[in-house]
Amino acid sequence: MTRQLVATALGRTKADLVIRNATLVNVNSGELLENQDIAVTGDRIALVGEASHTIGSSTSVVDVRGKYVAPGFVDGHVHIESSMITVTQFARAVLPWGTTTCCIDPHEIGNVLGVPGVRLMLDEAQQLPLKVFVTAPSCVPASAFETPGAQIGPMEIEEMMQWDGVIALGEMMNYPAVLAGDEGVHGEIAATLHHGRVVEGHDTGLLGRELAAYAAAGITSSHESVRKVDALQRLRLGMYAMLRQGSAWLDVPETVKCVTEAHADPRHVCVVTDDREPDSIVRDGHMNHAVRVAIEHGVDPVTAIQMGTLNPAEHFEIAREVGSIAPSRLADIIVLDSLTQMRIDRVFADGRLVAAAGKPVIEFERPSYPDVARRSVHLSRDLKPEDFVVKSPVARGEVEVRVIGALEGSVLTRQLVRALPVRNGHVQPKVDEAILKTALVQRHSGSTAMGVGFTHGFAFGKGAVASTVAHDAHNLLVLGTNDRDMAVAANTLADVGGGIVTVVDGETVALVELPIAGLMSEQPVEEVSAAVSRMYTVWQDLGCRWISPFMTMSLLGLTVLPELRLSDRGLVDTVKFEFVSPFA
Amino acid sequence: MTRQLVATALGRTKADLVIRNATLVNVNSGELLENQDIAVTGDRIALVGEASHTIGSSTSVVDVRGKYVAPGFVDGHVHIESSMITVTQFARAVLPWGTTTCCIDPHEIGNVLGVPGVRLMLDEAQQLPLKVFVTAPSCVPASAFETPGAQIGPMEIEEMMQWDGVIALGEMMNYPAVLAGDEGVHGEIAATLHHGRVVEGHDTGLLGRELAAYAAAGITSSHESVRKVDALQRLRLGMYAMLRQGSAWLDVPETVKCVTEAHADPRHVCVVTDDREPDSIVRDGHMNHAVRVAIEHGVDPVTAIQMGTLNPAEHFEIAREVGSIAPSRLADIIVLDSLTQMRIDRVFADGRLVAAAGKPVIEFERPSYPDVARRSVHLSRDLKPEDFVVKSPVARGEVEVRVIGALEGSVLTRQLVRALPVRNGHVQPKVDEAILKTALVQRHSGSTAMGVGFTHGFAFGKGAVASTVAHDAHNLLVLGTNDRDMAVAANTLADVGGGIVTVVDGETVALVELPIAGLMSEQPVEEVSAAVSRMYTVWQDLGCRWISPFMTMSLLGLTVLPELRLSDRGLVDTVKFEFVSPFA
Repeated sequence: MTRQLVATALGRTKADLVIRNATLVNVNSGELLENQDIAVTGDRIALVGEASHTIGSSTSVVDVRGKYVAPGFVDGHVHIESSMITVTQFARAVLPWGTTTCCIDPHEIGNVLGVPGVRLMLDEAQQLPLKVFVTAPSCVPASAFETPGAQIGPMEIEEMMQWDGVIALGEMMNYPAVLAGDEGVHGEIAATLHHGRVVEGHDTGLLGRELAAYAAAGITSSHESVRKVDALQRLRLGMYAMLRQGSAWLDVPETVKCVTEAHADPRHVCVVTDDREPDSIVRDGHMNHAVRVAIEHGVDPVTAIQMGTLNPAEHFEIAREVGSIAPSRLADIIVLDSLTQMRIDRVFADGRLVAAAGKPVIEFERPSYPDVARRSVHLSRDLKPEDFVVKSPVARGEVEVRVIGALEGSVLTRQLVRALPVRNGHVQPKVDEAILKTALVQRHSGSTAMGVGFTHGFAFGKGAVASTVAHDAHNLLVLGTNDRDMAVAANTLADVGGGIVTVVDGETVALVELPIAGLMSEQPVEEVSAAVSRMYTVWQDLGCRWISPFMTMSLLGLTVLPELRLSDRGLVDTVKFEFVSPFA
Repeated sequence: MTRQLVATALGRTKADLVIRNATLVNVNSGELLENQDIAVTGDRIALVGEASHTIGSSTSVVDVRGKYVAPGFVDGHVHIESSMITVTQFARAVLPWGTTTCCIDPHEIGNVLGVPGVRLMLDEAQQLPLKVFVTAPSCVPASAFETPGAQIGPMEIEEMMQWDGVIALGEMMNYPAVLAGDEGVHGEIAATLHHGRVVEGHDTGLLGRELAAYAAAGITSSHESVRKVDALQRLRLGMYAMLRQGSAWLDVPETVKCVTEAHADPRHVCVVTDDREPDSIVRDGHMNHAVRVAIEHGVDPVTAIQMGTLNPAEHFEIAREVGSIAPSRLADIIVLDSLTQMRIDRVFADGRLVAAAGKPVIEFERPSYPDVARRSVHLSRDLKPEDFVVKSPVARGEVEVRVIGALEGSVLTRQLVRALPVRNGHVQPKVDEAILKTALVQRHSGSTAMGVGFTHGFAFGKGAVASTVAHDAHNLLVLGTNDRDMAVAANTLADVGGGIVTVVDGETVALVELPIAGLMSEQPVEEVSAAVSRMYTVWQDLGCRWISPFMTMSLLGLTVLPELRLSDRGLVDTVKFEFVSPFA
């Protein structure tokens, strides 16, 4: 293969594709270079410079005079499942926005289906022009407080590290276990380091000695910075600071000040998407959006593009494959109308035009999924309204209850205490104060075990919503103003194999079907986005007017984020890391 | 192991070593940070920041207030054999100068002993505080024009890539074969890429499409830049530009202009030593010297230190082990009195103090070497003066002869044509014009086969010199004013097992014994340096007054460098790559 590239570079054989007269964003040298040609043979770049001698009668020549050419974006941290679409549909959705490589952490499907779920994602990606590298999910379950569909430990990590395409241990979000010296998580890290792979971090707000201790575990990235100081301390401790611009976390404007104000060397700074809902992809784009936000907040465009290409590629030690436009690299190339606006004109992946003017120009084959992926919502029986009852220690009046305080646009919750009314010995939600009953039903092993509590923030005036997307164990989350609608919502999802449903007065008023592992749709992103939009319209009509409320809702069960969460086994104080009584 | 580091960082267990109050050269963030502590447990860094909580009764505390602390240097390209000392003696020699990691290309010993020679270097390094990573020699022989002691091809590369500590394919100096699409060299590259390893480059003066073609072969570094444009083009094509500051090549002042004048991103720029003679190590230092020269030529000190630490570590994908001071990295730490002068006060390697005030403070065990390494000069019989005769096509008068034009301080030679006197049908050297007879005798298989020619430049007025260090096949090089001294010189080296000898009127007047593979001494660098100095004094007395003449001399047989070279099989035009007649 190298022989072929050499022959093309010298003009002995002709290129398959030559892009001519580009203004090249050279991320390797950190320069904008005018009048550059790029010669491509097969799926790789043979030459950058002057390429007329590589053009033959069958060479496809694309003149891009007046336009910029940059490497395809490399998303250093992304959960495809968060976009609610399959890997194939995700490729179709993000390639037109210039994302040609994703380092995915399939820990959502890992929590549902275990190692075979990870394999499923990797295998599906093999046929796609989108390069998908896998970071093996490290926290399945995220903590011992949850019941996932499968468990992943050092043995499973050891197995996955031997797969082609697995480049890292996925975000080690169980940082309390890391700091406590837990043998399981350190065993996973040891297996990863033994294979010469990278360990990805996910910590919330660690600083100083605790952050140093986290880094001492061999963890060399973190995407949880929300302030300048977070990013700066991570860089100083030898971690890559991955700055998030997802749908619900908009960290770049603040965190990028580590470069624009503190003037840290930007080489270890990446912009990543982490989680993007389908409608944000359709509306704002993907990695091009994250890079654009960095530029809007004062980062030089070439540096910002490095943050979305070369930097993550170097972090994962895949920079000889992707992340720059240079001989021998894969020909993942984007053509831009505007550097600052990150308007993508055309996208080449593996040397092939895959998108133009924001639309895919190739066909994507529809893969088939095994039954185990299609039928992942297992309840032992239909749920009944009385399953959701919260018995009060007092028969009537009011009772002080621990309430999860959800916050718009935040991954964090507050631990609130509210007085809730008691009727017939049952604690009632306080709908007019946006305090709803919340249940997490174990959906993996055919049980109806559930934890029930209360959440403040989602201002639904009536009805109930349910979701099989409920980080990270992805049990069946139900949030409602009354027990009857909650039961109907849960049973509806069990029937359709998963998704998000809104039920009012016993009737389904919005449904987003996500039949693959209860997480993903096989429909194109535009259709899923439309379905989610319809759902949000319904939610707004019902009184819930937050931006991206679903992302916040779906984290109510994530027992590694402060301060109070609900699992299928009960209410968890995620500061002290212990189960707590619903009653204060 | 990570558990222990975490425990120390949190103060649960105490550090073995704490360095306090440093002004830290933070190569990860590109900053100078004051009042930093570094806590070390075992051989790794547990914490950087404030470390008082990690200090216990058995913690060794080193206060370095007022001094700078930087990571130990990483030499990205170095041939230990060029320093004429064993790996152990090399470690003892360079650790006090702050070099704690070397990426070596043992292709000198590889040419003499083959794969077992490479293994010997790697095994010897295991016990040392100097980290030695091996790039597997790619060009043994350097070209088909030479007869080495062993051959290395794709099969041997495949074998070595499976060894721990082998991180790359060594400098692919046979660039004509790369450009010609030769199956052998591309097979070596394929084996390397298959194992996910880096391919090192060595090209001379390639630019434009030829350089692109060379990069298209998957080669991602080059240390042969001599001009700004060389370095800049390499950076732009996605190669690391390794800027040499060896004994005989002083490239940094000119090449570093790619950063200081052209303002290329310095992240892919490294300074390397390549080849340093023992006396330059003793006098000027090692990597600290290369970094100092970069600073002297306008590079910001932190950036220059990155060029000698983090940048090469990232290139070789060993940055999670070495190249920066951060939690979980190996505790290779240098203390500097002066940042710009690169004056090294103390050196820690693997968390242990190994040198202070320029001297080693630990003992180095003397390894034992197998007989095959100790007895590597194999001639079938003593050489006689008549073995060196060059028969002329004319019986008397003069004859036009192709003469190798050596150049002081340069790796290049010129192809000269000179009229040389003929006596009794034998071509004579022209000693008063510094044209000496030159022979390369095959020393590996017990033959006396040799190529004989003439060299201009070494102004010895009488006598002869011989060397078993003769890149890259390391046959027996003899340069003389008369055939008798040439024979005596050659036979003397065969007797002592190799080295460099100077003979005048049949008597040995200087001898540097290099009994390990005919390349290396087991003596300390100071003694070898003194022996070389004594030899240079003799050479100067004999009329040869060049700076570092030996390095230039030892390349006379390197058939991959322009323009004219001598091998054991005859004279080689290394521009056209063909054997040529000695007669013009």
